[in-house]
Order: sequence, then structure tokens, then C-alpha cells
Amino acid sequence: MIIYKRIPQKINHIFLMLFISLFLNIGIFAEDGYRLWLRYDKIEDTELLLDYKSALSQVVIEGTSATMSVLWEEIQSGLNGLLGEKIEMNDHPQKNNMLLIGTPANSSLINSLEVEDRLAKLGQEGYTIFTTSIRHHKAIVITANTDMGLLYGTFHFLQMLQTGKNIRNLDISSSPKIDLRLLNHWDNLDQSVDRGYAGNSLWEWHTLPDYIKPRYKDYARANASLGINGTVLTNVNANADVLTPKYLKKVAALADVFRPYGIKVYLTARFSAPKEIGGLKTADPLNEEVIDWWTKKVNKIYSYIPDFGGFLVKANSEGQPGPQNYGRSHAQGANLLANALKPHGGVVMWRAFVYSNEEPEDRAKQAYNEFVPLDAEFQDNVLIQVKNGPIDFQPREPFHPLFGGMKHTPVMMEFQITQEYLGQGIHLTYLAPLYKECLDADTWARGKGSTVAKVIDGSVYNYNLTGIAGVSNIGDDRNWCGHPLAQANWYAFGKLAWDHTSKSESLAEDWIRMTYGSDPEVVKTMSQIMMMSREAGVNYRTPLGLHHQMAWHHHYGPGPWIKDKQRADWTSVYYNRADAEGIGFDRTKTGSYATSQYFPEVAKKFENLATCPEKFLLWFHHVPWDYTLNSGRTLWEGLCYKYYQGTDQVKKMQALWNTLEGKIDEERFKHVQSLLKIQVRDAIEWRNTCLLYFQTFSQLPIPAEYEQPDKSLDYYKSIERKYLPGS
Amino acid sequence: MIIYKRIPQKINHIFLMLFISLFLNIGIFAEDGYRLWLRYDKIEDTELLLDYKSALSQVVIEGTSATMSVLWEEIQSGLNGLLGEKIEMNDHPQKNNMLLIGTPANSSLINSLEVEDRLAKLGQEGYTIFTTSIRHHKAIVITANTDMGLLYGTFHFLQMLQTGKNIRNLDISSSPKIDLRLLNHWDNLDQSVDRGYAGNSLWEWHTLPDYIKPRYKDYARANASLGINGTVLTNVNANADVLTPKYLKKVAALADVFRPYGIKVYLTARFSAPKEIGGLKTADPLNEEVIDWWTKKVNKIYSYIPDFGGFLVKANSEGQPGPQNYGRSHAQGANLLANALKPHGGVVMWRAFVYSNEEPEDRAKQAYNEFVPLDAEFQDNVLIQVKNGPIDFQPREPFHPLFGGMKHTPVMMEFQITQEYLGQGIHLTYLAPLYKECLDADTWARGKGSTVAKVIDGSVYNYNLTGIAGVSNIGDDRNWCGHPLAQANWYAFGKLAWDHTSKSESLAEDWIRMTYGSDPEVVKTMSQIMMMSREAGVNYRTPLGLHHQMAWHHHYGPGPWIKDKQRADWTSVYYNRADAEGIGFDRTKTGSYATSQYFPEVAKKFENLATCPEKFLLWFHHVPWDYTLNSGRTLWEGLCYKYYQGTDQVKKMQALWNTLEGKIDEERFKHVQSLLKIQVRDAIEWRNTCLLYFQTFSQLPIPAEYEQPDKSLDYYKSIERKYLPGS
Repeated sequence: MIIYKRIPQKINHIFLMLFISLFLNIGIFAEDGYRLWLRYDKIEDTELLLDYKSALSQVVIEGTSATMSVLWEEIQSGLNGLLGEKIEMNDHPQKNNMLLIGTPANSSLINSLEVEDRLAKLGQEGYTIFTTSIRHHKAIVITANTDMGLLYGTFHFLQMLQTGKNIRNLDISSSPKIDLRLLNHWDNLDQSVDRGYAGNSLWEWHTLPDYIKPRYKDYARANASLGINGTVLTNVNANADVLTPKYLKKVAALADVFRPYGIKVYLTARFSAPKEIGGLKTADPLNEEVIDWWTKKVNKIYSYIPDFGGFLVKANSEGQPGPQNYGRSHAQGANLLANALKPHGGVVMWRAFVYSNEEPEDRAKQAYNEFVPLDAEFQDNVLIQVKNGPIDFQPREPFHPLFGGMKHTPVMMEFQITQEYLGQGIHLTYLAPLYKECLDADTWARGKGSTVAKVIDGSVYNYNLTGIAGVSNIGDDRNWCGHPLAQANWYAFGKLAWDHTSKSESLAEDWIRMTYGSDPEVVKTMSQIMMMSREAGVNYRTPLGLHHQMAWHHHYGPGPWIKDKQRADWTSVYYNRADAEGIGFDRTKTGSYATSQYFPEVAKKFENLATCPEKFLLWFHHVPWDYTLNSGRTLWEGLCYKYYQGTDQVKKMQALWNTLEGKIDEERFKHVQSLLKIQVRDAIEWRNTCLLYFQTFSQLPIPAEYEQPDKSLDYYKSIERKYLPGS
Repeated sequence: MIIYKRIPQKINHIFLMLFISLFLNIGIFAEDGYRLWLRYDKIEDTELLLDYKSALSQVVIEGTSATMSVLWEEIQSGLNGLLGEKIEMNDHPQKNNMLLIGTPANSSLINSLEVEDRLAKLGQEGYTIFTTSIRHHKAIVITANTDMGLLYGTFHFLQMLQTGKNIRNLDISSSPKIDLRLLNHWDNLDQSVDRGYAGNSLWEWHTLPDYIKPRYKDYARANASLGINGTVLTNVNANADVLTPKYLKKVAALADVFRPYGIKVYLTARFSAPKEIGGLKTADPLNEEVIDWWTKKVNKIYSYIPDFGGFLVKANSEGQPGPQNYGRSHAQGANLLANALKPHGGVVMWRAFVYSNEEPEDRAKQAYNEFVPLDAEFQDNVLIQVKNGPIDFQPREPFHPLFGGMKHTPVMMEFQITQEYLGQGIHLTYLAPLYKECLDADTWARGKGSTVAKVIDGSVYNYNLTGIAGVSNIGDDRNWCGHPLAQANWYAFGKLAWDHTSKSESLAEDWIRMTYGSDPEVVKTMSQIMMMSREAGVNYRTPLGLHHQMAWHHHYGPGPWIKDKQRADWTSVYYNRADAEGIGFDRTKTGSYATSQYFPEVAKKFENLATCPEKFLLWFHHVPWDYTLNSGRTLWEGLCYKYYQGTDQVKKMQALWNTLEGKIDEERFKHVQSLLKIQVRDAIEWRNTCLLYFQTFSQLPIPAEYEQPDKSLDYYKSIERKYLPGS
């Protein structure tokens, strides 16, 4: 007795093929995360499905550009999948309930509608989606000024179906708040990835441009579905070889794949390239030969890639060459490249992540000191790319004072999506709350409400160019990002880059629905886990404003004792400053006075021990062990409380995850379950290590109500981690 | 109108889910090679399908061991897939036409049959498959002495269906000719792979033992399907850390996954481990502390992995430490480990790949000189692992004289499956003809017919232990082996390890049928491409016995001019010896006299210019440019002929491949097509580079009938390849 024998013969065959190739090899074809949030599985809610079907009886598209062609593919596979039936595709309306997608330029129907007012506000990438009636046919219309706007609108519409939104009486308009929405890949030409925890680089340089991996297109689709419109292919620790013709041909091949999806390619420019690949004796930005070399090099690049985006540059930072090697300023260095790019419309993103080995100044202050005096000196196609906090992507940092500090030069955001300091490929950490905390922080640059988000979107200082970048967590692992839930950080970054007013929780919920299905229990439980995960990660690593307490080199485990390295500001003791009296880095007037770099309202709050938010307490203050916290606990007790709270939170995440067994696919369930087992162990290690180490200064007991560490500090110090990925 | 609406409701749902998740996302779920030769897609030939169905109405299995459990999974998913219907699984017969799988120990039915005679000849891993009648029920029986024998028999039976074989009146018996059939992974603990061209290592050390990737099991399935029964997890350039408890737990977790599939794990032993992780001052194999350390270390290993296979050792070779560092012999080194392993049943595989920097002797001779005098000195659980040829996995080498040279110590084969010198992840090269050429070579050790195969299978010298190893080409690339056709080399190696009498062409055809389907055009065309590919690779690189002419370091492109490196025998000029008179390495009596290491019949043939096979001409002889070849061409003309023949062959392969468009899936078609484009270019580069370089000595023109090189030798010398994988 076999079930399909009951199926009519004609249908039998196609289903059987599918059945056999998928179901019977379920061990091989289990859900492995490759499809990201673009799964387009059939909507399970039958009522909703019927509603959608009745509203969507055909799709009407004209237009034949490359972007329209990928849009056509996407809407077809999306609707076929979500509705579970083959959607009719036409270039003119035939019946009620059509979905009409077009611009006034590529669609005579759209052109006949009165959409000028709507379109006037949308810019080049925005779109509008609305319900209307066209020649007595009911219709949902997606329109925009450009084909790319249409593609973004189409993804928006598909995501509404994926997340079960109402599609009756639509009236939606959306435009990106920020111009440049970029991924930064720290990918090397040998396919290794700095701080990459998801396998090798996606870019298979040695087979490009001949072989175009199907995955390049899926990468572009995924980014376009979020509104990401650019990608820096190469590591900020740059290699000049990528600027040679051999590699430019390869870059051009990738650009060709990405172009229909609205994604421009950018490269990192090694400042010393004129010497390394140009045969010049200098890379001095004021030298005529150097200027000429870059001009010709950039012209060459544009001959391969006519819409090349520009350069990202890490200069005079952590050993990278830069203009200061020749006694020139960052502005002189950036302008050298900006002048070459300008005729082509390219930009320079010049990183502010600089701190000098020789400089005795607090590392947190150096970027501000370096860049603010140069504010007026940059060309207008230069952006200053600033990490969210003044140190380096710690689990929690106050916002960087350069946000608001540069009035004339656009400051763009650099977030880290890859979890260098937040558990890498192992720990579950949903980063949207971290991004939001920074974006929503008020700089007071032009009074209350001058949030970091409004600085970078240009509304505070009216920047002529705006940008945001996320350091990618993508590799060639089958599931793209290593940890099955790390995809959510790519997703949330992209969505926030488009619209920084989005909420962490709703982003999480949408992502879960699209990636794991709409079972309310699954959505609720996974969302709960995700939403508590970043705070847990802060608590078990560096609560109350502690920072940079990680182990040497790999940045994975704890190492609060690290000292005596080649530079003080690469050590943990430089930052924790634990001693018999207390703990924390005095950045007030009595210390490094880093608070002075903020606007007065903010500076005052941070400066004053009583008003400084406790989450930043030890960032700004050296605080006595017996200081009384808001909770009434002493600082030491509060530290203990936070460290134990962090491990309890991870255990709670684990318990919650275990309730999902059977509710989601086994492959991803088990993967996350296994990683949470490691995370719980690691969290306890972080807690015990840090408390035992700080205890050598406080000389105070861990309160008896807590489970006491069962290993000694020496044991924890002896833990050695070798061969970790990405380090 | 949607097709599935015609399907009864109950069935509707499951098929729809499959339909949607697979079909509508066809772009994502295209055939990507992950399933290897275990696809089990429904048999397309309807007549054959009916025949199989009528012969297989149920499967009867008893037995509950871990191996029986995976056998049950495999036969079920295999038959369900191939027959396109759910097969009945029972523990007792209910109807005619059953497939009965069991041993006398686990099946009362089998026990009641008279199979003692059949089983007596099969050993512990063999199986027999025969047609019979049981209690008036027609039956196909798979039986064996062990559960593993059954699993091998089951895979054999499934492969018969996959390749369209007749399953009426079966009477098959098969046992492996060689005991140890192993993969060698040159995988490092940081997940890089030496000479690996298919991504990173499969072994995700940093998440083991907590996370067990589903892929570990698929790896074991694939190996068991070929009869491979062991895997050396780590690189011969060894790291002692893998012998620490932290890593042994991880190794044990892998061993647990592999065990039901009959696969033992082995590790590489770093000879200096007692110093590096043991804290001893020496690793002298005669030192009591060292002996004690290894004894305890091995006991410890067996406490984690009770069926641990043993050690593979590269000692005193290319910088690896070894017994000679302490003035001890290879035998003393090997016996140190062998004594520790012996109580547990473990073995030592000691590599003979040694050649000294200080030694002025021809590198091709050194291993023989080193090991033959030690023949009587090794413990009986030591095997000497010898590469197929005396240099290093060149496109063509004569067989290594150690095959036949060791009467008392078992010599085992080391083939390279990864294509270090044969185009790496880019060039299509089917290696079975290379393996067979070596296996079928006659050593004359005990008279005519003493082939290399019969040496290593023990039939020449009656070794008590036999083995064969293949250096793996497996990585974490989605398709396992990088080049879509490289899987065939894993397959062919495994099949030949089980039965070295198999034919290259039939192995190719079976693999194609299982991996690309049974369309006769596809089978014929792909087989033709595969069968010509290795000879093409020899011709465009190193015809007529040339060898070791590759570029420095990465071993991918040509570099016949390489000289003046830290050791002469790492250069190309050392091997080609091109000069005004001629070209080739005189290994006759007037030269290094390497011919003397072969048995007289072989030595005589190689020694004499007239009888030396032309494929080995320049391996053994320095030959004048005007020497007349069998074809009547001069040596120079013959060289030109071969180089041009090689590029013509690749162009032919390309043309043949292009005829497959539309006959196989697009994803793999395009991938191979892109790589062949690169291969044609590379082949021309090899040809032109080598001929232009040798021409500087011969001073003779490339015959006018050939397309002349359009670039200069200087151009070819200027080609630099950086960032290639695996190097």
C-alpha cells in the first residue's frame, strides 16, 4: 500500500520526483538555513491564505531592465511559494485583484494613474504600495521612481505575506533614511575572513571571473530584500593586489551579478598601493606622481566597473599605512582618493578607528581628538566611518563622541554584525538591541532629540551624504552566518539601515516568522530568547560599564588579567583598573576627561557618579567596592548580581529553546541546542573568571546565596583556546 | 487552476509542502552535488522499475545493533527512493519476493538456510547476495558473517539498482582484498587543509564534541558505501595537541558517529609529542620515560576510543621530527608506537616518504635505501606506507621500488586523491587510470604477475596485514570535493581499495549513473571525458616521463625553470636536466642507477633506452634532442607532439562537455563548463611555457603545423599566482 497510488497518474510523476528527492532523503535535505528569510513556504494559516489568494489573482508587470527581470523572478517564486499555486503573470490586466508593479516610465498603466504626488516624496529608492481600482479592476499597486524602488517595494510586499500582514486597503510609502547602506566584508584574497566565524569568504577569487557561483546571486537577493545597496568586498586590513587588473576583472564579475539588485561594489584601498603595486617610491598624498597614480587607477577601476562605489580606508591604524607616514593629515589622505573618485561619483569612507601607540592619551579619546580639528577639511565625497562606541565593538559601549562631533563632514556608522566580542559563531546574541541603544542615544548636538540616528541620517547637520555600514558575519557556511540565529543580525542590521525607527522586537518577530514559521509559540519563545540575549551577554562578560576584558588574540573567552603586552591599550587591566579601592576607568575630569568630548548635557550626566547610567558606570568612573548602587547593593554585590544574572539568563534561554523541540525542524533545533550547551558553560566561565579575578582586589566574598565557583582562578587562567576560527 | 487541487485532501498537504519547499525554489535547491553517488532518485527506465518492484515486495530484517540500525535506514531510504514507493519493512516474511538481510546470528531465517559454506570464505567484511526460495517464498538474500558485512552487501545491492543491473538469479560473493582501506586527511586543527581544494576541514573542532554536524554521518555513509573502513583525521604534518584529552574527547565523538558504519578513526602521531605536550626533555624512542609516556598516552586514547585504529606517522621528512633526531632508526621509532598500540590491536602506518637534504643521492632512491635494510626489524603491527611513485604524486611516475622491496614488513599504498599536481580544484582529472596503472604494474618480485596490487594485498609475500590509503580530496564545500567531478576520484579510490581488479571505465560509468543519471548519452560522453582526462593532464604538463616541473609552492601552474631553492630536489631543473644535448634524468647505470632498485626484469627494461616505455623515457634517461622515438619523430618533435596532444585533448573534453547542456542539471553543467574554460587556458600555458623553456636548450623550432605560442617565455615566467587554496 503506497499513498501516492491514489493520486491521478498525471500528477503522480512530478510529485513523486519531488517526494523522492526531498522526503526520502530527509536526512540530507533537512532545513539547513541556506534559504535565510526568503523561504516562501506556503502560508499555513488557511484563512489568511484564502484571503491572500482572493486579493492576488494575477501579477501585471511591464519593463524589461535587468532589475525588472530579477523582480519578475522574485515575485513569481515568492507568490508561487507562499500561495502554493502558480500565479498568473501578465503585462496587462485581465481580471480583478491584480498586483500591478511598475514605474511611470516602464508601465503605461501606472503612467495613467495619478501617482506624481506620491512619487515626488520617495526619492530614487523609495516605493509606495496602495490599493486602488484601475479601469474597474481592483488592484494593489507597487510603484516607484526607479526599477530599484520597485524591487524594494516588491520585497516589502512579499515580506508582508511572509509575516501574515493585512493586505487590504494598503497605503504604504517608504524611503530609506540613509543613503549608503553597506556591508563591510573583512575578507582576504586567500578567502580567509578576519573575525569571520562562518567559514571562508564567499568570494572564490581563484575561479572568478570564469565561474560565477550561484551563491553570489543569492547573496545579492538577500541584501536587496533588506535594502542594503552596497558591499565592500575586501578587508580593511587591505591588500593592494585587489587593485590590479587581474583582480579588478574578478570584482567586475561580482559587480555584474549584484547590479540588478541595486548593490554597488566598493573596495578597501591600501594607502601604500602606489608603492606596492605601482612601483613608486612614495605614497605621500601630496606627491604629484602619487596623485597621478591614484587618478589613473581609479579611472581604470571605472573602466571595469562603471558604477563602482568607492573606497573604504583604514589608515594609520593598527599597522596600516596612511598619510601620517608622510606627515600628512587624515584629511589630506582622504582627499587624495576623493579627488580621484569624484569625477565618477565615487565616495571615500575614511575610518576614524585610529589610536596611537605612542600616544599616552586614553584610547577612547583619540579618534575625536584626531578628527574634529579636521572637520572642515574633507572633500564633499568623503564620509568618516565611526564605530558605534569609542573603543571597539564591545558588548556595551556609550556612543562615540564623534557622532555629533563633526558638523561639516558626514559621519557614518560602523556596526559589527560579526560577533567578535559577543561569542563569535557559538553564542546566541541578537544584536538589534545593541544597534538600537546606540542609534537612539541622544547626542544633544543640536539640543534634545539629536539622536545618533539623526546625526547619521543627516537630519541634525544636514549632511549631503549619509551612510551606515555593518561588518559582515557572512561566510561560505551552508547557513551563511555560522550560528543559525546569527542571520537575524544581518537581517536586523539591513532593516535598521533602511529605517532606524524599526523596533528590535518586531524585527525579531518578522525574522522568525520568515525563517522558522509562524507558529505563535515559536515566534513568542524565540523572540523572548533573542530579546534577552544581548543583555545576558553583557551581564556575564562586562556588566556595569566594564569593557575589553577578553582573552588575548581570539577575543572569545575571558582574560581580565591580561597585561604587559606590546601596547597598554590592548590589555584588560588598562580598562578595568581594578585595585584595592575599587574598579573602573576614571574618564571624568579627575581622570582622562573623555566625558568632555560629549555635548554638555551628556557630559554632565556621564561625569556625575549619581547621574551616570549604571550600565556605563565603570566606563566613566573608578568606583569604590563599597559604593552603593541604585539597588542598594554595594558595587561588589552588584557586580556579583549582574554576573550571576547573566548566567541565569543564558540558562533561561537554554530552557526556553528546549521547549521548541518538535516545533521547529530538527536540524536547526539540535544545532542551536548544542551551541547553547557550550554557551552556558562559557558564560559560567566568564562569570567565575571575572569575579575570582576582581575578588583578588576587592577581597570580598561572593554572596553566599550564589552557587560558588568550583574552580580556582588559576584553573581559569590555565584555559587555553587555540585554533579558533577567525582569529 | 492549480494542479494539486485534483489530489485527494489527505495527500494534498504533505505533497504541497514538499512541492513548495522544493520546486518553487528550484534556483536555490538545484542539484549541488551534496548527495554524492547516494542520490537514490527514482529509476527512470519504467521496464526496469517494474522488474525491480516485482522482485522486491518487502524487506525482512532482524537485528538491532547500531550497524543494523543504519543499514535499516539506508535500505529503506534507498528502496523508497529508487522504486518511488514506500517499501514494506518486516522482521519476518509475509509474501513472495522478499529481500532478506541478516547474519546467522541475528536472523533465525538466515540461520535456517545452509549458508555456512558461502560464509566460510567471506571473512569479517565480505558478503554474499543470492536468489533462493525460503519456505516457498522467493527471496533475495544478503548475508554475511558480521553486521558490517551485511551493510557492505546492502550498499552493493542498492548500487546494482542505481546502475540498472539485473537482479534475477543472483549469486554474488565479495570480500575486500585489502584489510585497511583508509582515507588520509591532511586536515589541521585550525580547519585548514594542506593541499585541500574543497574548502575547510569537515572537522569543526571548536564545536566538538558538543555539536555533531549532520554531515559527519553523511561522510560515514559515503565511505561505507565504498567499503572504506578507516580514516586518519589529521595531517601527517602533525600537531601533538590532538593527543591531549581535550581533543581526544572530540575525536571520540567523531568515532561514535563513524562506528556503526564500520569506520575506525586513526590519528597522526607527532614524534616529538612527549616533549611538546608531555613535558619530557626528549622524544628518544629508546628512553624509558618516552616509552612510558607513549604507553600511557595510548592507553588513554583507548579509554576514549575503544576501537581506535592506530597512528600514521611522517617522521624525519620535510622538517617533521623523528627517531633520527636521536640517532635511532625508523624501525626503532615505529616500534616505540607499535609496542604501545599492540595490546589494543592498533597499528602503526609509518610513511616511507623520506629524503634527506644532506644526501647527495637521487631523491627517487632514498626511501628504498633507507627502508630495505630495516625490513626484518619492524613489529608485526607496523605497515610501511609508500606513495605510488618514488617522487611525489606526479601526474605519472613509475611504481615505487619499495613495492616488492620489502619481504617481511607489509608495504601499504598511499595514493593521492586530492589533485595537488593535477589541477587541484580546477582541472577535471579522473584518477582511476593513474591508480590502475600503478596497481597493475608488474614488480616481478616473485616472478611474472607479481603486480603492485598483489604486493599490497599480501598475496606476493603473504603479509599478515595489508593496507591502502588515499589522501582525501574532501572539504566542507557543499559538493564535498570542489570540482563536481572530483567526487569520482573518492569513489574510484574506495572501490579499488575493496577490489583492485575493478576497471577504470566501469567505475566511471557506475559513478556517472549514480551521480548524474542513466541517460546513455550522458554516461557515454562523461565517461569519455573522464577516461581521457588523466592522460591529457600528463601530456600538457609532463609527457614522456618528465616530472616535477610545477611552479614553486602552490604546485598548480608550470615552472620548468625553477632552480636555486633551499634544496636542489625541490627544483624543476634538478629533474628535467635540460641542456644543449638533450633532456631527462639519467637513472641508469651511467646516472643515479635508480633502475637497480627494481627487480632484474623490470630494471633491465627501464635501463635500456630501446625497451624503456616511452611514457617513462625521461624519467630514466637523459635523451638527445634528435633521438628517434617509436613514432619516427625526434625527441623534440615528440615532446612538441605530446604537449599539443594534451591541449587538444582538453579542448576535446570541453567540446564533449558542451554537448551535455540540457542533458544534466544546469548548476553542475555550468560549474564544470566554467572550470573547463580555465583548464583549457591553463593547459595552453603549461604547453607553451614548457616548450618555450626547453626550446632555449634544444634551439629547435616548434613544428610549423602547430599553432605557435603567442606569448614569450618571459611573459609566462611573469605569471604569478597568489592566494591559491590549499597551499
